[in-house]
Amino acid sequence: MASIIGDNFKVSIFGQSHGEAIGTVIDGFPAGFSVDVEKLQNFLNTRAPGGHLATPRKEADKVEFLSGIVDGVLCGAPLAAIIRNTNTRSGDYKELMDVPRPGHADFTARIKYGGAQDVRGGGHFSGRLTAPLCIAGGIARQILEAQGIKVYARIKQIGSAKDSPFSEFPDEKKMEALDGACYPVYGGESVAEKMMAEIEAARNDLDSVGGIIECAVFGLPAGLGEPMFDGAEGVISKVVFGIPAVKGIEFGSGFSGSAMRGSENNDPFYYDNDGNVKTATNNHGGILGGITSGMPLYFSVAIKPTPSIAKTQQSISFSNKENTELNVKGRHDPCIVARAVPCVISAAALAVYDMVKKADFKSKSKF
Amino acid sequence: MASIIGDNFKVSIFGQSHGEAIGTVIDGFPAGFSVDVEKLQNFLNTRAPGGHLATPRKEADKVEFLSGIVDGVLCGAPLAAIIRNTNTRSGDYKELMDVPRPGHADFTARIKYGGAQDVRGGGHFSGRLTAPLCIAGGIARQILEAQGIKVYARIKQIGSAKDSPFSEFPDEKKMEALDGACYPVYGGESVAEKMMAEIEAARNDLDSVGGIIECAVFGLPAGLGEPMFDGAEGVISKVVFGIPAVKGIEFGSGFSGSAMRGSENNDPFYYDNDGNVKTATNNHGGILGGITSGMPLYFSVAIKPTPSIAKTQQSISFSNKENTELNVKGRHDPCIVARAVPCVISAAALAVYDMVKKADFKSKSKF
Amino acid sequence: MASIIGDNFKVSIFGQSHGEAIGTVIDGFPAGFSVDVEKLQNFLNTRAPGGHLATPRKEADKVEFLSGIVDGVLCGAPLAAIIRNTNTRSGDYKELMDVPRPGHADFTARIKYGGAQDVRGGGHFSGRLTAPLCIAGGIARQILEAQGIKVYARIKQIGSAKDSPFSEFPDEKKMEALDGACYPVYGGESVAEKMMAEIEAARNDLDSVGGIIECAVFGLPAGLGEPMFDGAEGVISKVVFGIPAVKGIEFGSGFSGSAMRGSENNDPFYYDNDGNVKTATNNHGGILGGITSGMPLYFSVAIKPTPSIAKTQQSISFSNKENTELNVKGRHDPCIVARAVPCVISAAALAVYDMVKKADFKSKSKF
Amino acid sequence: MASIIGDNFKVSIFGQSHGEAIGTVIDGFPAGFSVDVEKLQNFLNTRAPGGHLATPRKEADKVEFLSGIVDGVLCGAPLAAIIRNTNTRSGDYKELMDVPRPGHADFTARIKYGGAQDVRGGGHFSGRLTAPLCIAGGIARQILEAQGIKVYARIKQIGSAKDSPFSEFPDEKKMEALDGACYPVYGGESVAEKMMAEIEAARNDLDSVGGIIECAVFGLPAGLGEPMFDGAEGVISKVVFGIPAVKGIEFGSGFSGSAMRGSENNDPFYYDNDGNVKTATNNHGGILGGITSGMPLYFSVAIKPTPSIAKTQQSISFSNKENTELNVKGRHDPCIVARAVPCVISAAALAVYDMVKKADFKSKSKF
Repeated sequence: MASIIGDNFKVSIFGQSHGEAIGTVIDGFPAGFSVDVEKLQNFLNTRAPGGHLATPRKEADKVEFLSGIVDGVLCGAPLAAIIRNTNTRSGDYKELMDVPRPGHADFTARIKYGGAQDVRGGGHFSGRLTAPLCIAGGIARQILEAQGIKVYARIKQIGSAKDSPFSEFPDEKKMEALDGACYPVYGGESVAEKMMAEIEAARNDLDSVGGIIECAVFGLPAGLGEPMFDGAEGVISKVVFGIPAVKGIEFGSGFSGSAMRGSENNDPFYYDNDGNVKTATNNHGGILGGITSGMPLYFSVAIKPTPSIAKTQQSISFSNKENTELNVKGRHDPCIVARAVPCVISAAALAVYDMVKKADFKSKSKF
Repeated sequence: MASIIGDNFKVSIFGQSHGEAIGTVIDGFPAGFSVDVEKLQNFLNTRAPGGHLATPRKEADKVEFLSGIVDGVLCGAPLAAIIRNTNTRSGDYKELMDVPRPGHADFTARIKYGGAQDVRGGGHFSGRLTAPLCIAGGIARQILEAQGIKVYARIKQIGSAKDSPFSEFPDEKKMEALDGACYPVYGGESVAEKMMAEIEAARNDLDSVGGIIECAVFGLPAGLGEPMFDGAEGVISKVVFGIPAVKGIEFGSGFSGSAMRGSENNDPFYYDNDGNVKTATNNHGGILGGITSGMPLYFSVAIKPTPSIAKTQQSISFSNKENTELNVKGRHDPCIVARAVPCVISAAALAVYDMVKKADFKSKSKF
Repeated sequence: MASIIGDNFKVSIFGQSHGEAIGTVIDGFPAGFSVDVEKLQNFLNTRAPGGHLATPRKEADKVEFLSGIVDGVLCGAPLAAIIRNTNTRSGDYKELMDVPRPGHADFTARIKYGGAQDVRGGGHFSGRLTAPLCIAGGIARQILEAQGIKVYARIKQIGSAKDSPFSEFPDEKKMEALDGACYPVYGGESVAEKMMAEIEAARNDLDSVGGIIECAVFGLPAGLGEPMFDGAEGVISKVVFGIPAVKGIEFGSGFSGSAMRGSENNDPFYYDNDGNVKTATNNHGGILGGITSGMPLYFSVAIKPTPSIAKTQQSISFSNKENTELNVKGRHDPCIVARAVPCVISAAALAVYDMVKKADFKSKSKF
Repeated sequence: MASIIGDNFKVSIFGQSHGEAIGTVIDGFPAGFSVDVEKLQNFLNTRAPGGHLATPRKEADKVEFLSGIVDGVLCGAPLAAIIRNTNTRSGDYKELMDVPRPGHADFTARIKYGGAQDVRGGGHFSGRLTAPLCIAGGIARQILEAQGIKVYARIKQIGSAKDSPFSEFPDEKKMEALDGACYPVYGGESVAEKMMAEIEAARNDLDSVGGIIECAVFGLPAGLGEPMFDGAEGVISKVVFGIPAVKGIEFGSGFSGSAMRGSENNDPFYYDNDGNVKTATNNHGGILGGITSGMPLYFSVAIKPTPSIAKTQQSISFSNKENTELNVKGRHDPCIVARAVPCVISAAALAVYDMVKKADFKSKSKF
């Protein structure tokens, strides 16, 4: 129900921020595939806080495999991997969360679970749960890469600081070069500095900022996705909205395409020199009728500003049944956009891998 | 796989534009519910072409029930309903579609089905397939309404003509009053006329325009949706992207929220006079952590401009393996935004009904 | 939920015995496959009543395709097919079924659907619903056959009349030769006549008899099925128990194997002359650890005696809330075992086709 | 795919016999439920080897919870629990399993996973994987019990030693009294001793024996299960066949019912003194038309003799590509029937819990 995705392979995510461990169980990865564990750990590290241009990232959470892998090779049994939580608390948390944080799931989780929810650090709704998502997604990305399918993402906007747009197509070489950077942007250091300035300004105001991430998938064959409800847009969206803080998604020209004329938004077909069918522009984002066209697939994702801010906010007290002020304590990340980049890549990789598994290429004729 | 949605109830859509019939099979609607068939047919009529302010809509396709209903009452067996196609052709269509229409699924369907796809009128990818979606969604909407849950939609934008925004919240009374209108807009006739002018201009240029539809759900209990991959945003998106021509979706403040500070975008909680927990603003769009908050749920959907245009376009000829010009014949609708309104309502109703069925309210405590 | 099966393709069955039509929607059959419609109709005819050795079968229900097929070739869109009901009644059925028939779903359907269920002729629980199952299964069987996978069944027992057992293996040639016979039995006419005598005796006593059907699948590759809950036994059982009247299933040596020693029940491996791995006996029924071994897969199915009998039975009257006698009127089939043969074949073909689609043969090494 | 069950809640099982850990993730248990961890551990202990009437069972594997539970109370997040493997080996296992054991999944796993499968101790196909099944099932059983639904099982047969049959109905009091016994049989110590004698005889012959387990569910409401493919028989079978060594299942009178007349096998309805509808006999096993009748649900399961035997067997050598003899080393359990009892209970509890969650009791009228 809740934390499971996939039709042809299944990914289950479990854990709470302050429980024993967070983890994932994946059923359906190909037996015999060698996981590059160091590369996976590096990918997970891009989720870690840090992220000034000059300072290196911190070491991220350490993956521990419980099953499904023997000597680094997938054995066909479900893959289970966990990350131990080190800051588990068992003390006085019962008093916590009498006052729900605006913009958080504190309130809705309380309603849904009738007070039994784990209130420590956001419980199952914590951003920390994106770590196992990145374990699963990081491996899916490796498997896709071995088939020539590459998944990259960049930061398109933080606050009001925008990266340069691409011209007709997302640029595979550029995005590959940016992979793993703290601020993967087309526009170079000057853009990254503007973004950091937005974040610093928010931090100084005890506030936060959101942003937009753009993800692109290169090397996809045409013909993936199924008509209507299993179209590529729907399959990808379902997984991407599993990332906390995502509130919007658009494929290709998306919302701006809605204001265009058909003659502008339609992408003309042509044969390239190798006899492959391509489109001259890519407003369709690599998807027509829910089915991949063989052109680069790309989409943008709206990340809301981090709800945890130090500024005083209005809320309620459940116990007193009255309105009250809330001052969230602790050091908070004023912007999680950069850390969300591997999460969006992971979501895309998992969704694409599900479609790849589903595709029946035998029925595909050549032309 | 393809044309089936739902976890706790299943909706299957079948048919091609020029096949014998299009239809839907729905498994999981409540036995004993009386369907208002006339109201359903009126709802389907809002999908029909027509739509000048002054002229009435045309009569839409006629629903024929095959099973699941006895004397207008659902009997618990799967509900099957069809609409007969009247313009079926069996003649010379083999010559058709040598030249794929830009922006259409002609090309991707050919790749996917290796040339076996039904090329007549877009086959299974035709917008006509939204008619059975509206049968299923129209009944889901009636069932939700009987439980106090209302689903409405309005046109937010066509081309560059924009409807007035709502202030803090979507307005239930206003949207109810607009229900069924050809141009359901907050801003009244003047806005509707601007929208029609955009459409007429496009028609005169042998071109088309897109737009944005906003959908709102009122009366939803708090606590629907599941953490991570079955969150309300993901469940709704999966179905909404099943509507051909949808290329983007945003919930609450969505993409514009990404440029906000946390202090702006967070919605303060308060107790209203009846002791209910509410939020002062609704940037979260009624969903926090993937779970409904009890505030109105709303989202916007980007509809791309109709790809079928009379203007000459660049494409290819499969048979000649060369680039060629394409002139699409026939009368084409220069804007399908108004006709997409019941489709968005239907998608929302089906997704919400799935979540309602899934919710285990027995485990929910009161406070 | 209810009437849908399949992971990698979906089969939905709808209809009631006396509704407008019964039918099926199948999503996931391969585009480009040519259905042999006459062969399909002949297969459906084996479901028809009749079945004396001497007299030909009656003409069965006529299939009408609504979508998914163009000029006899599957086009990739969901396949929808219906059979019109000719004996629909709309009159006085409200009085019917005050007295639930023992052994029928009359009582449980009433509870489940709170009185809204279609009571005419058993509604959705009627054996008539196996006709659309045989449409779906008959096509699946044709697709499998084109891949060298053959599905056959025979009658193993009716009442106390038993067919001869096979020796080590089900015999492909024999079962192929029996395909379509009214009484497909190894033992020839003498066995068939004993079975018919059992049926006649039951008919004369205003009673009914049950029996056992054995189904075998030849030509299956090794490696189908998934460990634990998607093992071949579980996948097949799920579909087979969808046939009304089935109350048991056993694979290979099954229940009798439970009384054996391991040394008897284990099947020794050996290399045949072509270097293929085979087993000397086949107590495992072609499945080890839930995964096909490449040996013939076979299973037996227990069919309960038809519950509709003319003999006076004890039941209750809902309206009077008292115990009462029931005399079921009309002519009833004293044995449905022969007619259940194509149903068991269909269930097996659908389950096997689902596994075939799921199997990732690319990951399979040769040895 | 493989190791995941459930529609309305999901159970995922992972692990290999000699990997780091085996475990389960369960999504959909009710928040707020207090797990009796000691009772759960005792239930797991009934899976442990041991099982002479006189000697106590050994201590079983220790459950470690990773998530989903706070202070013994389910918090709504997915429940993850593991059991560490203590006998992990990393040495020379590459040489193992050149010779596949007859009756085991060694051969089929090799084909399926192309040689990448974990060969140590049976890997993912080991009977050890039933330990996490019993964690999930043991908790499901506790949740059902809190709703008045009891799940019990007894040994019906080991080798040729048979327990006494029940008369009309499985006896709730008797089965409750036997719960947790090493040899839960109706017939008392004399029957248990005959069963142990069968096992000892097999052990002395370096052989093994199988048996039959009967499971009964009491207190089920009428109306659970869905027509056709989600009927109670199909849902239960799917999970029960997930237990290695199960080769058959029959509900109610099952295979013996097939040889009966309808007048014998049909169960007459009557009103009991409290005005409840009951059946005088229970050949239908509590299920009619796939839907529970409110009578005790019961079924029998065929367990094949343990394939691991010390006797010399015929097999092949993959490396030499020749036939060879196999002598399986180590101490092997000559009969796993007694240890399979909690596994069958667990499978039944999980399947029933899934149906209970799916049932929409609101639509059910009273009479």
